[in-house]
Amino acid sequence: MRVSFENDYSEGCLPEIIESLQNTNYEQTHGYGLDDYSIKAKNKLESLLNVEPGQVDIHFTVGGTQANLIIISHFLRSFAGVISAPEGHIATHESAAIEATGHKVLTIEADSHTGKLSASELSEYLINYWNNPEPEHTALPGMIYFSNATEFGTHYTASELTKIRDVADQFELPIFMDGARLGTALMAEPDQLTIDQLVNLVDVFTIGGTKNGALFGEAIVFTNRKYNLADNFRWTLKQRGGMLAKGRLLGLQFNTLFTNNLFFEAAKHANQMADLLRNGFTKRDVKFWTETKTNQVFVVINSEQKQKLVDDFGFLSWLQLDEKQMSEFELEYSDKTYEVVRLVTSWATEKSQIAEFFAAWDKAAN
Amino acid sequence: MRVSFENDYSEGCLPEIIESLQNTNYEQTHGYGLDDYSIKAKNKLESLLNVEPGQVDIHFTVGGTQANLIIISHFLRSFAGVISAPEGHIATHESAAIEATGHKVLTIEADSHTGKLSASELSEYLINYWNNPEPEHTALPGMIYFSNATEFGTHYTASELTKIRDVADQFELPIFMDGARLGTALMAEPDQLTIDQLVNLVDVFTIGGTKNGALFGEAIVFTNRKYNLADNFRWTLKQRGGMLAKGRLLGLQFNTLFTNNLFFEAAKHANQMADLLRNGFTKRDVKFWTETKTNQVFVVINSEQKQKLVDDFGFLSWLQLDEKQMSEFELEYSDKTYEVVRLVTSWATEKSQIAEFFAAWDKAAN
Amino acid sequence: MRVSFENDYSEGCLPEIIESLQNTNYEQTHGYGLDDYSIKAKNKLESLLNVEPGQVDIHFTVGGTQANLIIISHFLRSFAGVISAPEGHIATHESAAIEATGHKVLTIEADSHTGKLSASELSEYLINYWNNPEPEHTALPGMIYFSNATEFGTHYTASELTKIRDVADQFELPIFMDGARLGTALMAEPDQLTIDQLVNLVDVFTIGGTKNGALFGEAIVFTNRKYNLADNFRWTLKQRGGMLAKGRLLGLQFNTLFTNNLFFEAAKHANQMADLLRNGFTKRDVKFWTETKTNQVFVVINSEQKQKLVDDFGFLSWLQLDEKQMSEFELEYSDKTYEVVRLVTSWATEKSQIAEFFAAWDKAAN
Amino acid sequence: MRVSFENDYSEGCLPEIIESLQNTNYEQTHGYGLDDYSIKAKNKLESLLNVEPGQVDIHFTVGGTQANLIIISHFLRSFAGVISAPEGHIATHESAAIEATGHKVLTIEADSHTGKLSASELSEYLINYWNNPEPEHTALPGMIYFSNATEFGTHYTASELTKIRDVADQFELPIFMDGARLGTALMAEPDQLTIDQLVNLVDVFTIGGTKNGALFGEAIVFTNRKYNLADNFRWTLKQRGGMLAKGRLLGLQFNTLFTNNLFFEAAKHANQMADLLRNGFTKRDVKFWTETKTNQVFVVINSEQKQKLVDDFGFLSWLQLDEKQMSEFELEYSDKTYEVVRLVTSWATEKSQIAEFFAAWDKAAN
Repeated sequence: MRVSFENDYSEGCLPEIIESLQNTNYEQTHGYGLDDYSIKAKNKLESLLNVEPGQVDIHFTVGGTQANLIIISHFLRSFAGVISAPEGHIATHESAAIEATGHKVLTIEADSHTGKLSASELSEYLINYWNNPEPEHTALPGMIYFSNATEFGTHYTASELTKIRDVADQFELPIFMDGARLGTALMAEPDQLTIDQLVNLVDVFTIGGTKNGALFGEAIVFTNRKYNLADNFRWTLKQRGGMLAKGRLLGLQFNTLFTNNLFFEAAKHANQMADLLRNGFTKRDVKFWTETKTNQVFVVINSEQKQKLVDDFGFLSWLQLDEKQMSEFELEYSDKTYEVVRLVTSWATEKSQIAEFFAAWDKAAN
Repeated sequence: MRVSFENDYSEGCLPEIIESLQNTNYEQTHGYGLDDYSIKAKNKLESLLNVEPGQVDIHFTVGGTQANLIIISHFLRSFAGVISAPEGHIATHESAAIEATGHKVLTIEADSHTGKLSASELSEYLINYWNNPEPEHTALPGMIYFSNATEFGTHYTASELTKIRDVADQFELPIFMDGARLGTALMAEPDQLTIDQLVNLVDVFTIGGTKNGALFGEAIVFTNRKYNLADNFRWTLKQRGGMLAKGRLLGLQFNTLFTNNLFFEAAKHANQMADLLRNGFTKRDVKFWTETKTNQVFVVINSEQKQKLVDDFGFLSWLQLDEKQMSEFELEYSDKTYEVVRLVTSWATEKSQIAEFFAAWDKAAN
Repeated sequence: MRVSFENDYSEGCLPEIIESLQNTNYEQTHGYGLDDYSIKAKNKLESLLNVEPGQVDIHFTVGGTQANLIIISHFLRSFAGVISAPEGHIATHESAAIEATGHKVLTIEADSHTGKLSASELSEYLINYWNNPEPEHTALPGMIYFSNATEFGTHYTASELTKIRDVADQFELPIFMDGARLGTALMAEPDQLTIDQLVNLVDVFTIGGTKNGALFGEAIVFTNRKYNLADNFRWTLKQRGGMLAKGRLLGLQFNTLFTNNLFFEAAKHANQMADLLRNGFTKRDVKFWTETKTNQVFVVINSEQKQKLVDDFGFLSWLQLDEKQMSEFELEYSDKTYEVVRLVTSWATEKSQIAEFFAAWDKAAN
Repeated sequence: MRVSFENDYSEGCLPEIIESLQNTNYEQTHGYGLDDYSIKAKNKLESLLNVEPGQVDIHFTVGGTQANLIIISHFLRSFAGVISAPEGHIATHESAAIEATGHKVLTIEADSHTGKLSASELSEYLINYWNNPEPEHTALPGMIYFSNATEFGTHYTASELTKIRDVADQFELPIFMDGARLGTALMAEPDQLTIDQLVNLVDVFTIGGTKNGALFGEAIVFTNRKYNLADNFRWTLKQRGGMLAKGRLLGLQFNTLFTNNLFFEAAKHANQMADLLRNGFTKRDVKFWTETKTNQVFVVINSEQKQKLVDDFGFLSWLQLDEKQMSEFELEYSDKTYEVVRLVTSWATEKSQIAEFFAAWDKAAN
């Protein structure tokens, strides 16, 4: 394979990160996230979030599934479940990690193209639930989960988040925003959300390092807006295997990412590379399964096209179009079948790789 | 603080490991442990274990608590518990991580100085359990756990392991040996165990990278001696948050550790540095709480000595001696109190650091 | 309220059961299900099932949710989930009891009118699952669950069960048939299934006492057809709170139910009473939401009709019909709205109660 | 066997309870504990507790292990454990039911003869725990559990409970008192505790019906003294299989027990029968393993005595005395071995049964 657009964790990390590991390698630091680099990284993040020292609670852990299961199992009482879109990461791609901690993922309707929760669907679900005179026979909704950017590469605007928050507040439910791909969502134009707005919009969110320039690592931010979600969090972090012995590794990486705007620049680069993909597809009249502004691009291609590209370029088969979906896209039945494929760019994607892809595409088309 | 002997995860990693990260940084690899470096590392480990390709099952994960909870929860049926010494890591230092997966840690008597399980105590416990006409009222023992090296720095001989294995086989119980500090145990002289002997002595074991030269990482080896413990293991690895997206990081590190004997050399170095500590203490008539040959040294010191060293040198307060323990060590009551402290060396410890420590000791003594 | 058709657990129990409690009240028996009455009940059930002593494993527990969560959590390994129709009892009405034991309920398509799993949908789901090259990112299907009678009052024929079993065998999955309403399903005409056929058709099933003449109690039968599901089951029974101290209460009740055909006669009576309801509705041109032969009757009534009956008769509002469903039933929009209501009969229902209901209906209609 | 003193759940129930079942058998009641009999029983219990309507929260469930696991898992956050004496029921006889819900039972020192928690041991444990600078590596104590009467037949005085409560309040920990044998504890003379005192002494307690005259059933009382333990409790009750469909059965039984002092009279009778046993043993110079005033009697007998009685009378072998324990009891080594056996009386025990026992004893002695 010449180039893989399969995902945003194919490469290692930003060179500044390896450098930081190298420069500090023989320093002796305290374990378990209590080292000076972790503290520095937290201080820098506090600045980015425009908060007073100690106003928010910040922790670091290694991976995304881990962060999700730790946060959700930490907060929920044993009888409660977590609300998610049917395509939410916790509902589909984490091998029932939430259920393994004893909690049901309560999927509610969401737009099947954008994968986004809407405030109105959420509200309807919650009103119905509490209108039931004996609701105790189905799991109590105890938390709201969504990803930003979503699993479909879409992202939320401040206005959408405000509406969801208002419903959440009405029902006294904390919001957990999974930011495994937060960088790309924050850098998506137009209507950019700034990271400090999150402090008032959600109750806990993650900042994904793994898919945005770090070797690994997710920052967890409890905004302490309304709920004491963070209380005793280090216990859960330890208990679920999320407390890294050499916590410095997480501290060093986030300290680096939050220096000189590296985190945001890495995401911006990924989005720009995705724009090149989007432009290339538009120019070639390829239809988009869903409109995205982040580093994920979903396009409808036919079986012939796929066949010609699949040996040299990596991408993900997302969905085989059925008859109804084909007519929606004004595609005619013939000997070809159509499918949605996903291409992903990252901090490491190079212009030349995009060019190489479209050159192959054009060659295949002739 | 000038030097910390608090633990063996204070520093970063062997320089060869950073080098490997750097050299491969822009390569695109498959995620989730299916990359070429993980395969290479497995092949090298198969050679070290003298097994046919595929004879044992090998996986990698990030940390020790994680490895323990994943392995134990993967194998045990819901009603079963895991046997451990009272001082076993899973019983004391993992914030009830095993219980959080639904399983009780069944502690049985073990030597309070060495922290080692004995075949005879194990056998007695199991015979008693199954002699109970209605055993279903207490949790069924479903697995045997112990650490090697132990939490007390002691290690098991092949003969001891054989006896434990024979009891385990008699009761059809798999053995899980926690090797977070396996390197130091294997390098402990005399009567060294070789790593390939483990294939016939235990059913699953870990090989700790975190405490022996890697940035992080534990290899998990299912020996497939008698039980199909490894079946569907990738599901549990994913579900418990133990499957690293950039699996290459684990592959690269273990591939490096298993090259040029690095893993064993790192452990040997740590043991040699601990020997220097042991010699130094012996020379100064300091008593050992327990005899160790690994990188952990437990000595009995008095409050005055501690006070003079504690600002400049890091070590762990392990135990305050009570009257009975003092008389056991032939210590007289006076205005001094006595305690056991733990000093740990690592791949990164330098001779000069040991010298510095004893220089300070001697200075304090005068 | 004059009569309740809300459910089949509104009354106490068959008089023979109270009598058995009374007659044995001062006998001293062993606890925890090891008493003579439990043994007698098991022997009688073995006869009904036409099996050799010990061929199947039989246990008793108190309630249905309890039985479901105990059976499923007993068998499944930690990483596995259980397949169910979306309307399966474990998926909808048990407050996430299965998830609370750590396992996801994997809902697959089922007929939304009958609530029955079909072999073909099951097969398609399983083929797709195992065709995925990296299935470990979604929970492994480890068991098949369905209710008979279903939550929609429908029941399975031997031929349907055979097809499901064949798919299950192909994928080496055990079948758990929830028989909370097994009596009514077995007595549903025509094409009656006999209870001994179940030994070859499913791997574990329950026999509901609560809804069929007992005060409470579910028998659990492991058929031992292919899997050793029953091994160590008493441990799980105890651990999940399902082992009754006075096990005799369960033994006595099932011993009574399995004497003189009482279990089957009770169910037959309930079905006959439901036939009276069905006939009454048919005569009055009331449409059935779904065709049932068991003790549950689902009919489409309008808001006016409901209003006139609801004070005197108990029944369950099941579903508000939407526009599409109304046209399906050839109902015209007017000022009336339509809904599906559920009426349930039991061993205790009397003819006069049905007559009273229709008398009120007819009065309301004029 | 002529008479069993093995436990207090060998017989059925008080005749008044069967009568109540019989009298109400054909009434139709609402399910799941929302019936009128459950409400009546709650009202009567409120009177007994001298509380305003609604001041405490009352629920009913079937069994003791169930009640324990439901209460504890309902309250504890995922990372917390429950403190218990090493011989607490949840620590020893419930097949790791608590651990199966994800929580560790944290055993602390208790008097090995009385099995009672002491305020001072509790306080010492908690002070030590919170003095640890990094306590997150061991499970957080989140609740205090003990049984009254204890597993050793001892009971707590108001003064002892007050001291425990004060320690609990200091560390903001709720107290759960397992009252599976509460009746016998409340009727133990002298220094009787009254049931209404419990409202100020503990945060949640159970009132055992199973072992005190009911067929089955445990009342659960949340005193709402300091914590909102009861919030959403019906969800947990349902989820863990503790919500009985025919909730009337629990309502009817407790309504009966709380009428005409039946609950207390039953326990008083059991204690009086135990007094007869105690007097008989005292008269015969048999030594007591521990002093009890409740319905459990622990005596030290030798192997010869046991052999002569064991065919005709049921009792439990509790403990084989070792050399140290024999000398403590001033027993001389000879060809005889000594053991502790437990005899239990109940609401159903008759004077004549005690007489029969001692007649056989005396006959054996000659």
